[in-house]
Amino acid sequence: MVDLTIWTTWNSMIPMLSFISPPLLLAETAEAELGPMVLAGVLVSLIVIYLSSKLIGELCARINLPPVLGELLAGVLIGVSVLNLLIFPGEGEESTSILLTFLQATDGLTPELTAQVAESIGEVITVLSEVGVIILLFEIGLESDLKELIRVGPQAAVVAVIGVVVPFTLGTAGLIALFGVPAVPAIFAGAALTATSIGITAKVLAEIQRLTSREGQIIIGAAVLDDVLGIIVLAVVASLAKTGEIQISNIIYLIVSATIFLIGAILLGRLFNPYFVALVDRLKTRGQIILPALIFAFVLAYIGAAIQLEAILGAFAAGLVLAETEKRTEIEEQVIPIADMLVPIFFVVVGAKTDISVLNPFNPANREGLIIATFLVVIAILGKVVTGLGVFGQPGINRLAIGVGMVPRGEVGLVFAGVGSATGVLSESLDAAIIVMVIVTTFIAPPLLRLVFREESEDVETVESLPKTE
Amino acid sequence: MVDLTIWTTWNSMIPMLSFISPPLLLAETAEAELGPMVLAGVLVSLIVIYLSSKLIGELCARINLPPVLGELLAGVLIGVSVLNLLIFPGEGEESTSILLTFLQATDGLTPELTAQVAESIGEVITVLSEVGVIILLFEIGLESDLKELIRVGPQAAVVAVIGVVVPFTLGTAGLIALFGVPAVPAIFAGAALTATSIGITAKVLAEIQRLTSREGQIIIGAAVLDDVLGIIVLAVVASLAKTGEIQISNIIYLIVSATIFLIGAILLGRLFNPYFVALVDRLKTRGQIILPALIFAFVLAYIGAAIQLEAILGAFAAGLVLAETEKRTEIEEQVIPIADMLVPIFFVVVGAKTDISVLNPFNPANREGLIIATFLVVIAILGKVVTGLGVFGQPGINRLAIGVGMVPRGEVGLVFAGVGSATGVLSESLDAAIIVMVIVTTFIAPPLLRLVFREESEDVETVESLPKTE
Repeated sequence: MVDLTIWTTWNSMIPMLSFISPPLLLAETAEAELGPMVLAGVLVSLIVIYLSSKLIGELCARINLPPVLGELLAGVLIGVSVLNLLIFPGEGEESTSILLTFLQATDGLTPELTAQVAESIGEVITVLSEVGVIILLFEIGLESDLKELIRVGPQAAVVAVIGVVVPFTLGTAGLIALFGVPAVPAIFAGAALTATSIGITAKVLAEIQRLTSREGQIIIGAAVLDDVLGIIVLAVVASLAKTGEIQISNIIYLIVSATIFLIGAILLGRLFNPYFVALVDRLKTRGQIILPALIFAFVLAYIGAAIQLEAILGAFAAGLVLAETEKRTEIEEQVIPIADMLVPIFFVVVGAKTDISVLNPFNPANREGLIIATFLVVIAILGKVVTGLGVFGQPGINRLAIGVGMVPRGEVGLVFAGVGSATGVLSESLDAAIIVMVIVTTFIAPPLLRLVFREESEDVETVESLPKTE
Repeated sequence: MVDLTIWTTWNSMIPMLSFISPPLLLAETAEAELGPMVLAGVLVSLIVIYLSSKLIGELCARINLPPVLGELLAGVLIGVSVLNLLIFPGEGEESTSILLTFLQATDGLTPELTAQVAESIGEVITVLSEVGVIILLFEIGLESDLKELIRVGPQAAVVAVIGVVVPFTLGTAGLIALFGVPAVPAIFAGAALTATSIGITAKVLAEIQRLTSREGQIIIGAAVLDDVLGIIVLAVVASLAKTGEIQISNIIYLIVSATIFLIGAILLGRLFNPYFVALVDRLKTRGQIILPALIFAFVLAYIGAAIQLEAILGAFAAGLVLAETEKRTEIEEQVIPIADMLVPIFFVVVGAKTDISVLNPFNPANREGLIIATFLVVIAILGKVVTGLGVFGQPGINRLAIGVGMVPRGEVGLVFAGVGSATGVLSESLDAAIIVMVIVTTFIAPPLLRLVFREESEDVETVESLPKTE
């Protein structure tokens, strides 16, 4: 029905268009006309992405929620769930995005070119979001401090491992046993429960001035290790999802290859670092730091993808390696604007691709999806809160605070959802359930963290209680 | 709550999954498999682009040639003329790029997906290069100083106008009269002769410590004005090329609309600037400067494209406007890494798309193309050298030096070649002739400029002759 309306509208528009531009030229210039149309569509998509993510990100920052959550919610708002302003590959002719209507009205996009232009815009935005997550992981790697990680050592390692194993096992087993989810998506969803978002926790700890407390140090150390473990888990799980097979030998091969890749990259990187610095010092033309760094990140990302792991694992390894050079600060400074430009595209696209309406509680058909989402949220919280129990030899330490500090999933959880939806292994409702899990854990962690630390400072350490900032 | 039927069905399917999946899942996952392949292809393309442009750019810097020339030559080397490492849209199945062979060998790209993946990679790289030229013009706008331009005033304006009118008229008329080139491509090629590259001249003047001399000031002022005039000319000419029609009313409309757009954007921008600064100061989340700046640039770029001018005219206007805010330095600092990442893609793609073999002097069929190229080079040099004659009321000034300072075309000339090849209006040989013109004028300007200033300092101003710094 809709198709017919559009069809007749298009047909009636053609004579008008041919009046403006000679009909003879239409066929000849079709290829040449596509380019500017695609560019215009990409520009409008980027404007919509940046405007919405900045707007909702700033709102989130004002009510003490992490801005990344704002970017995700902006994606949900402008995506398939609500406003449908973006286009994704595979939609092609079926796309009913308002963006296309807008381009037809303002930029002279002709109906016969619409499907092809829509497909190209979708491709470009998707690749930009993927380059965005590569840059994000490169930056996370750059900001991770290997030496610091080794120093915090065993305490953080125990907390991190518990925080990966417990939610992963409970989540996967629960999804298979209670909800009959097939093994591969269940493993994927279980894996999405593992990674802690260091950014959100670190920010809240800094705000309540607990970043350098014993608890804070263990949380941060464990969260960084969680990132590493989570990315290895993701690489393994995504690879399983690609082949669709689960064989113990395959899993062992993947875990070993991911670990070898990461450790190998770091060890080789240490040999290579002095040459990198010497090379960069000799370059005279613009981009003398950022381009060699990007080349390195993209090469490792490509290798990561080519050996059946993930591109982001390579980018993360590249970041870890370059973090050990004396150029670290300079690289970070220059990566930040690039990340500011590309990373929001990733978060917005993850939100935009998620059809949140499959969890609409007013539709009875969604009940199972909602129950699964609730289950994931409960496991996500419990599985991390118990990690505090793993701390040993630290009398009087606030175990609850450590556990709560590990709860937020944030960006890394979203990376799982994004990769999962790209591999096509997650059902719509499971995909949406993971997004909801990330949103809820990220929403509740900051107030919970303030609560458990406030109780402590009121009850136990009233003497050194600190003024509550912000 | 737990649906046992589903559970048992799924459970019994799990063991089957392992051997059912490979053939059965292939069709289903085709769409999902495309994504990673496209990303891998884009990563490899970017690695090739960055490596080659850095390598040859550094070589150029060492023999005192502008690095941008290195990026262009890198493009010629890895493009269709020589190594054929990149893919462009429209090649699709016919692409014989080694990149596809590489992806098939290392990343498991299957032959049946190759054409589609190639098309997508080409689209993405093309859009990245177009965003690159938008960022380039935004940066050029940011670096232009409107107040300074108004101060240098009439002298520079006369030089600039002569430097636009003479080469444009001689070039277009010559191509039509001597070589029988159709009007639209002749106008395009004539227009490509107009814009002076401020970057190259400014760099050489700084090196020989003449940037603040009277000649230097006039050259820089005129070169900036030339950029503005050149971009207006480009917008007009590209619009003519799109419709294929040349009507005086149309040309007047385009010139007026381009001028109104630019002046209007600057005037409105002055009103809007205080709000921009106030807004940026209130933002709390990451990217608080660069994202509003990019939104502004992309919005003006889109408007520029939508009103049948060029996206780059809008980006340039956005740069000019934001250059007048107090945030200028901060925006520039953050745009630089983004430009370093995206601009080389543009220059390399311009070089890579040019089939330089159409000017191979050993093939008799290329004779006419070669003669046209030679003609363009001669007009390009003479048309700018005469601009020195336009300087008035400045006794003893080195008119030859001013004229020679206006010779290099550099990046703006390449923007013309890039836009021209995108609109499909230029024949292969004319496209290649423009590229050769840009290469030659850019090659000869630095040594010529040193020569004319050296003669002067030896003959006329021996007293204040300066040590020749490298």
